[in-house]
Amino acid sequence: MKTVKIILTGCGGVGKEFLQLIADRNEEIKEKYGLGLVVSAVVDCYGAAIADSNSGLPVADLVDFVKEGHEVQTFSTYGKDEITGVEVITQLDADVLVEATPTDLIDGGAAKGHILGAIDKGMEIVSANKGPFVLFYKEVFKKARENNCGLHISAATAAALPTLDVGITCLAGTRVSLAEGILNGTTNYILSEMRNNGTAYDTALKEAQKLGIAETDPSYDVEGKDTANKTILIANRVFNKTLGLADITVEGITKV
Amino acid sequence: MKTVKIILTGCGGVGKEFLQLIADRNEEIKEKYGLGLVVSAVVDCYGAAIADSNSGLPVADLVDFVKEGHEVQTFSTYGKDEITGVEVITQLDADVLVEATPTDLIDGGAAKGHILGAIDKGMEIVSANKGPFVLFYKEVFKKARENNCGLHISAATAAALPTLDVGITCLAGTRVSLAEGILNGTTNYILSEMRNNGTAYDTALKEAQKLGIAETDPSYDVEGKDTANKTILIANRVFNKTLGLADITVEGITKV
Repeated sequence: MKTVKIILTGCGGVGKEFLQLIADRNEEIKEKYGLGLVVSAVVDCYGAAIADSNSGLPVADLVDFVKEGHEVQTFSTYGKDEITGVEVITQLDADVLVEATPTDLIDGGAAKGHILGAIDKGMEIVSANKGPFVLFYKEVFKKARENNCGLHISAATAAALPTLDVGITCLAGTRVSLAEGILNGTTNYILSEMRNNGTAYDTALKEAQKLGIAETDPSYDVEGKDTANKTILIANRVFNKTLGLADITVEGITKV
Repeated sequence: MKTVKIILTGCGGVGKEFLQLIADRNEEIKEKYGLGLVVSAVVDCYGAAIADSNSGLPVADLVDFVKEGHEVQTFSTYGKDEITGVEVITQLDADVLVEATPTDLIDGGAAKGHILGAIDKGMEIVSANKGPFVLFYKEVFKKARENNCGLHISAATAAALPTLDVGITCLAGTRVSLAEGILNGTTNYILSEMRNNGTAYDTALKEAQKLGIAETDPSYDVEGKDTANKTILIANRVFNKTLGLADITVEGITKV
């Protein structure tokens, strides 16, 4: 059986659920795909939990620990204070980086260093973080190509919708002429309420906030910023463009 | 640039359009994927056209030739009378078999030999033919696994719909709980007419026949046989089953 060693950077909502899935489905994945997924390290803001052997971290225990509100750097004998993502990526030998820190659209944040570091090590990269790809698409993909690294960013591009996987893999060899859709959950909820129930925009937004679908500050969603980022990634990956935020016009749903 | 040598078996509607696509899009595919697609041989009922060098057959000329109604075995200096698909597959060194002969659900027809022969040669196989997979799923896939050959049968399973590619690749690692849909074009046309325009079944069927969507003998479509075959392939590939026609209940749309 092939073993795949994973470094996870970012242990917030996405990171925790990723670990939970590994804990729950490892046996299933072994059986179905012949792959043994091993978590070698989990890095968060103030340190990391790092495995002391090739069999990786005890993921089920780690999930319980972080879901109780503890920080990874205090986990059993595996916790290490202060160490950064780039240091972990440089020092460990792992196969895959799963990047799940929060998206930073100013300078890419820590994720940029994680991804460039993983490319230097020849790792495969799976990123739920949009920042480095929206801001530095050309640079990052060029470097990945030179190092023969796969960059997998479906999780950053409306993960549950058929976007990049379908556009790149299932439609390989075809000419894709158009992509359209509602790429943002909050927007989808508000527009559906307005259309199906005749709800006013403000009321629908408040409902979405009450349900926890929309943020207290909903501007990232309703002003189209999130959709703009996803659109850029779809344009670049499926239509072979190298667009950035400056290249596109964005209009939110606040005046629909 | 990587070169991929292809043997095409079957030069009917599907085979001709496949060759046309290669002729039209070879440059585009080279540029986008770094792949040079070379057609080494095209086999039909009474013989084959076989390339005399590594650069393959002149595909654009061959497409014109067969679209004018000529047989492949009479094509220029490349035509060879009598030679069979299995002989071509055994004698030539090629990378990919594209199997596009008509589906035979009695014993798999010539396609079974083509596919088993290609597996023996360690080729990748792309099949638009359902027969061997519906009838001998377990045997064929076991042999392919042992020889490390990829068997790609999306083209046999409602090609234009998101079935196997999405179920196997895009949804890898997830638990797929249900697949439902209208998997047959004739059925889709008739049911849509009945629902949208209140057309009676018989009238809708006659319209479909007039438009060339339905066959003169529509039983394969409207009695659910085509859908049954596709359903078996989806069940086997996406849900890891090993079902055959005897395992499922089929009801057509003739009494809807």
